Amino acid sequence: MDAMVAPSATLALNEKINARRAAGDDILHLGFGEAGLPVLPEVAAALAEGATANSYTPVAGTMPARAAAARYLSRGGLPTSPEQVLLAPGSKALLFAAIAVLPGDVVLPIPSWVSYPAQIGVIGKRAIGVPIPREVGGVPDPDLLEAALATARAEGADPRILILTVPDNPTGTVAGAAVMGRVCEIADRHGLTILCDEIYRDLAYDPATLCSPALLLPQRTIVTGGLSKSMALGGWRIGYLRTPPSRTGQQLAQRISGLGSEIWSCLSGPMQAAATFVFDAPAVVTDRIVASRRLHAAVATTAHTIFTKAGIACRAPQAGFYLYPDLESLRPALARRGIETGVALADYLLDDFGIGVLAGEHFGDSPTALRFRAATSLLYGSTPDQRHQALTSTDPTALPWIATALDRLHATLQSLT
Amino acid sequence: MDAMVAPSATLALNEKINARRAAGDDILHLGFGEAGLPVLPEVAAALAEGATANSYTPVAGTMPARAAAARYLSRGGLPTSPEQVLLAPGSKALLFAAIAVLPGDVVLPIPSWVSYPAQIGVIGKRAIGVPIPREVGGVPDPDLLEAALATARAEGADPRILILTVPDNPTGTVAGAAVMGRVCEIADRHGLTILCDEIYRDLAYDPATLCSPALLLPQRTIVTGGLSKSMALGGWRIGYLRTPPSRTGQQLAQRISGLGSEIWSCLSGPMQAAATFVFDAPAVVTDRIVASRRLHAAVATTAHTIFTKAGIACRAPQAGFYLYPDLESLRPALARRGIETGVALADYLLDDFGIGVLAGEHFGDSPTALRFRAATSLLYGSTPDQRHQALTSTDPTALPWIATALDRLHATLQSLT
Repeated sequence: MDAMVAPSATLALNEKINARRAAGDDILHLGFGEAGLPVLPEVAAALAEGATANSYTPVAGTMPARAAAARYLSRGGLPTSPEQVLLAPGSKALLFAAIAVLPGDVVLPIPSWVSYPAQIGVIGKRAIGVPIPREVGGVPDPDLLEAALATARAEGADPRILILTVPDNPTGTVAGAAVMGRVCEIADRHGLTILCDEIYRDLAYDPATLCSPALLLPQRTIVTGGLSKSMALGGWRIGYLRTPPSRTGQQLAQRISGLGSEIWSCLSGPMQAAATFVFDAPAVVTDRIVASRRLHAAVATTAHTIFTKAGIACRAPQAGFYLYPDLESLRPALARRGIETGVALADYLLDDFGIGVLAGEHFGDSPTALRFRAATSLLYGSTPDQRHQALTSTDPTALPWIATALDRLHATLQSLT
Repeated sequence: MDAMVAPSATLALNEKINARRAAGDDILHLGFGEAGLPVLPEVAAALAEGATANSYTPVAGTMPARAAAARYLSRGGLPTSPEQVLLAPGSKALLFAAIAVLPGDVVLPIPSWVSYPAQIGVIGKRAIGVPIPREVGGVPDPDLLEAALATARAEGADPRILILTVPDNPTGTVAGAAVMGRVCEIADRHGLTILCDEIYRDLAYDPATLCSPALLLPQRTIVTGGLSKSMALGGWRIGYLRTPPSRTGQQLAQRISGLGSEIWSCLSGPMQAAATFVFDAPAVVTDRIVASRRLHAAVATTAHTIFTKAGIACRAPQAGFYLYPDLESLRPALARRGIETGVALADYLLDDFGIGVLAGEHFGDSPTALRFRAATSLLYGSTPDQRHQALTSTDPTALPWIATALDRLHATLQSLT
């Protein structure tokens, strides 16, 4: 293992911004992928009821919890048996374990989530980045994928794993059936195992746009997800991994459990109880997910309009609460201020405007690209009451605190041009 | 990383025994290191109150939770600042991270906890086992340590880390000041960093026997612990790590946090709330710990008497709920039944007598040694009510279900001779 690991860029920025806020600075925090909503009271009650569960459970989770997760996945269009499900304290831990136990090096779309290359590096594998298509993120451009595989092999790498993110972080888009079909066809032909991060699965604005590779390439696809985004439970650390329905899948589950047994033992019992409640999707849960999806869509879509009105290229959001604008059109204006990299741009926005975003470089993008990820989910309010109002409002962007934040974003972008 | 990891032997045996019990078998479960007691209601309430904490926290934990842990450690005799404390979902995760980020190979006492060599192997380091002294476990025999270091170096290893367990698992003993002083002197002279697992710290029958190497070698000692044993919260996964009070300690904390940020992100917010409540030690918590320590001592000490009455050598327990008997005196009798290894002995006890124990080989002991670990904590009862009675009884070994279990152990051991 590589013992030199920098803190996760997203967590580091979040800690930095929280420290500045604690010091009294007024920061518009677009830098962190937290769902920004309160805990649903019925889920809190399920956690409290699960408090008596103080035994170590099987590494993969209790059978009732795994069965509930399997029902959830099956309802969502991925027929799943309980034996295919592993639970853990966060899907991040399961992604780490999967990358560790699967053979070979790792292909991933660029840009993509900051933790993939960090995990790959810790484990001592090579990361082979392939740019995303113009239209959509979360997948490598199928026109570039085969050449990238060939180049990687020529350079001594052994690409065997392909990470996808559907819906995507950082672009907020959803890879559709056409591009996914092409990617899966290439993955199949080259013997790649797909590791598909579907943590934003329930936040696709139009669920019909979702096309999991687990349906196109069922024997070669592992899916991960969790409750961090759809239920705003990031700080609770509840994740799942779905193995393929095969003997290979069973062996994979055993190996991931083996590694998990030496790092995290199991997801805590009370959290398994809370997860079981959510996975079984009572109406309060499904209503909450629908409401949060509507809120995310309203604010992200409005923010997208603000970017495009400033002449900034940006894919339209289709899920979750992220935008990934490209300020290339403002390069001359920014260059006059000495800003020629994405990190310089993010620093400028934070230092001069108090706006926190995460530079594209952290997602593996070119350092000179004037791109960043803007997360809109921390605009919903600074108190539980404001967040609750945002969640139930028919016009959340008209709420004063959200409107003010969006106006500030608008004014800042206009001042850049 | 070594991708081939067998499931943790302790967790695997536990799952096997639970499956046999579910099938109706009457198993005397001495095979698992769970504290066997219910959740304290006030701690369950603290978890429930913490349910609103759904934000990702800093990787090391919130400052209030770290400060509470620091107060707990300081009260326990290890003066600690909040910055020295990292929290995580289990001390196992923190041990993994510490072994990963510290340079060099790892010296460990034999026998010792099953997960140390597994973690060392996953990380790709060498484990250098040194037998424990005759009297006490958790430390390498100081008479053998220097020769073992020399041999390891001659074989190309680079021993730089020394794992200690105080109080010990599997022997249930506490390394005292004399032996600890000798071990620390050698560790200091050879530049070893000590990683001292003190998860059983609060379960020493006589707290005055505890002698943390963090007091003897403060600049070179890392301490880990958690609430799994003292508060019977194994399934909640709450662990801490204490770094040395130095610049080196700060750098170590950063590196462990960096790795943690890519595997587990943080201990869940509600668990941090529960941990804060426990670390601040209200009377209900300290009373519970005193009562559980008394119960563990009563049952383990009685079980120890049963072993010694059967002519079996066994160190007297001084902490927690483990015994590590040596059936060498019964070798001729066992050999007549074809039993010549520790694993064969454990299998025989499970298959023919329904008694589950974990063979010494899983703790790194010689396969031919007729030794195993017997955990007495799952004898307290099969229902919350029984466990509660055990906890409050002035004579727990007289409770019918505990007396019956101990009688069964006695009869089994007598039948072996």
